[in-house]
Parts: sequence; C-alpha cells; structure tokens
Amino acid sequence: MNISHIEHIGIAVDNLEDSIKYYEDVLGLKCYAIEEVVDQKVKTAFFLVGTTKIELLESTSPDGPIGKFISKKGQGIHHIAFAVDNATQALKLAEERGVTVIDKESRKGAEGLNIGFLHPKSTLGVLTELCSKS
Amino acid sequence: MNISHIEHIGIAVDNLEDSIKYYEDVLGLKCYAIEEVVDQKVKTAFFLVGTTKIELLESTSPDGPIGKFISKKGQGIHHIAFAVDNATQALKLAEERGVTVIDKESRKGAEGLNIGFLHPKSTLGVLTELCSKS
Repeated sequence: MNISHIEHIGIAVDNLEDSIKYYEDVLGLKCYAIEEVVDQKVKTAFFLVGTTKIELLESTSPDGPIGKFISKKGQGIHHIAFAVDNATQALKLAEERGVTVIDKESRKGAEGLNIGFLHPKSTLGVLTELCSKS
Repeated sequence: MNISHIEHIGIAVDNLEDSIKYYEDVLGLKCYAIEEVVDQKVKTAFFLVGTTKIELLESTSPDGPIGKFISKKGQGIHHIAFAVDNATQALKLAEERGVTVIDKESRKGAEGLNIGFLHPKSTLGVLTELCSKS
C-alpha cells in the first residue's frame, strides 16, 4: 500500500465562495486553485496546509455524490485521501485484504491524480480515497 | 492564527482494538501510542501518516463526546485539528473573527498538547480543533 501522507481531506460545503472566505479570512489559509470536476459533479477549491490539502467540494447537481451527501448529512468532512505509490495497485491490495472497493481501478480525479475509493462500510465509516500521481 | 499543518484527524470508532487492526493490517500504518484521556472519556490510538496523525477515538462512556457522536452518527471522521503557534491566542482570534468557540482558553489534551475547539455551526459543519505545544 505504501501510504506516504494524507494527500487531502475532502469537505462538502453548500457554497464554495462563502467557504473560501471562511478558510481564508478566519483560518488564514490561501486558496490556490479552483477546479470543476465534471465527472464528479463538483466544483472544488484547494488549500495547502503543510503537506496536506483541504479540498472544498460544492455540488453542481443534486444527484451527484456531494449533493446526495449534503442532503443527507449537511455540510462537513466527506473523505480522507491517502497518497500511495500506485492507486490501482493499492485498490487491488485493499480488495485482497477484504475491503469493499468502490473503484476496482483508478480513474482521473482533481489535479490530474489517479484516484479510487474504498467503501465506508468496510473502512470503519470513513470514506477513503487512495490517490497517486502515476 | 498561523496554521502550520494538520496536526491530526480524529476518527470515532466503536472498538479501538478492531480499528487498530484495520489501520495496521489493511492500510499498513503503525500504531505508535495508546492513551486514555479521562477528561474526554476516550481511549485513543495514534498513527503517524507523513506529518499528520490519525487519532482513533473509542468512547469510555456513553455520555462522553465520542459516545454521543457515535450514537447519533455512527463511526466516522469526528474532527480536524490544526497546529497553531499558540492555541489560546488562536481561539481568541477565531472568536474575534465571529466563530463560536467551544473553549475560550486552551486546555490539556492527548499527547500533552494545549487544545481547544471551534463549534461546527460556525465552521461549515467541521468540528475544528486548534492545538499547540506551548
């Protein structure tokens, strides 16, 4: 698996603009990128905090994963993403170790990373992303 | 505020022993400390992932904060803790900036850190801890 660090923490928000204002004006962090991930039906904003990013996620559609999450649970922490050497290999290894994977192979996510998710029912309630540059 | 990095991510779990097994055997991380924080009614287990810790939290009492969280929401991510220069000063600054603080001054938390919490109702649904060594 070779997890090197927490690549990012995904946080579901109602409104990206208001949320960027909170993270900048209250916490003093700096948004360095805004990106729409059409496939995931989200607009994202990124902040670097040490070696980990905070990824704010605003849904662009009520039927997307963040839209559904917010309608059920409200705003809040959505997932943790671990940086690994190779996301597809790490997904396979997790499955071999008994984890239910949402993605059997990695796909392209925000910032061009290869990403895949583990299902929270087999990760103690934590939606877990594995991601890698290669 | 001077946030340097994400000090830890707190994750509420039903059973510390089973959860350590998942983080070690599936994700390949290593638990380096177990500590009971009597004041918070929790037993905690720590894993270092890059420069950020994962803090698993098992409630020792149904009326403690983690016991209440789990009975309402189930297992999952409970809070994010940002490392700051001085937790008491950062709490005051957050309050000046309009945040509802749970702790007006820092108190002692796990690993001897000075800690205090911001209320999720004014932090976009994210229970936020500020912590410092001094």
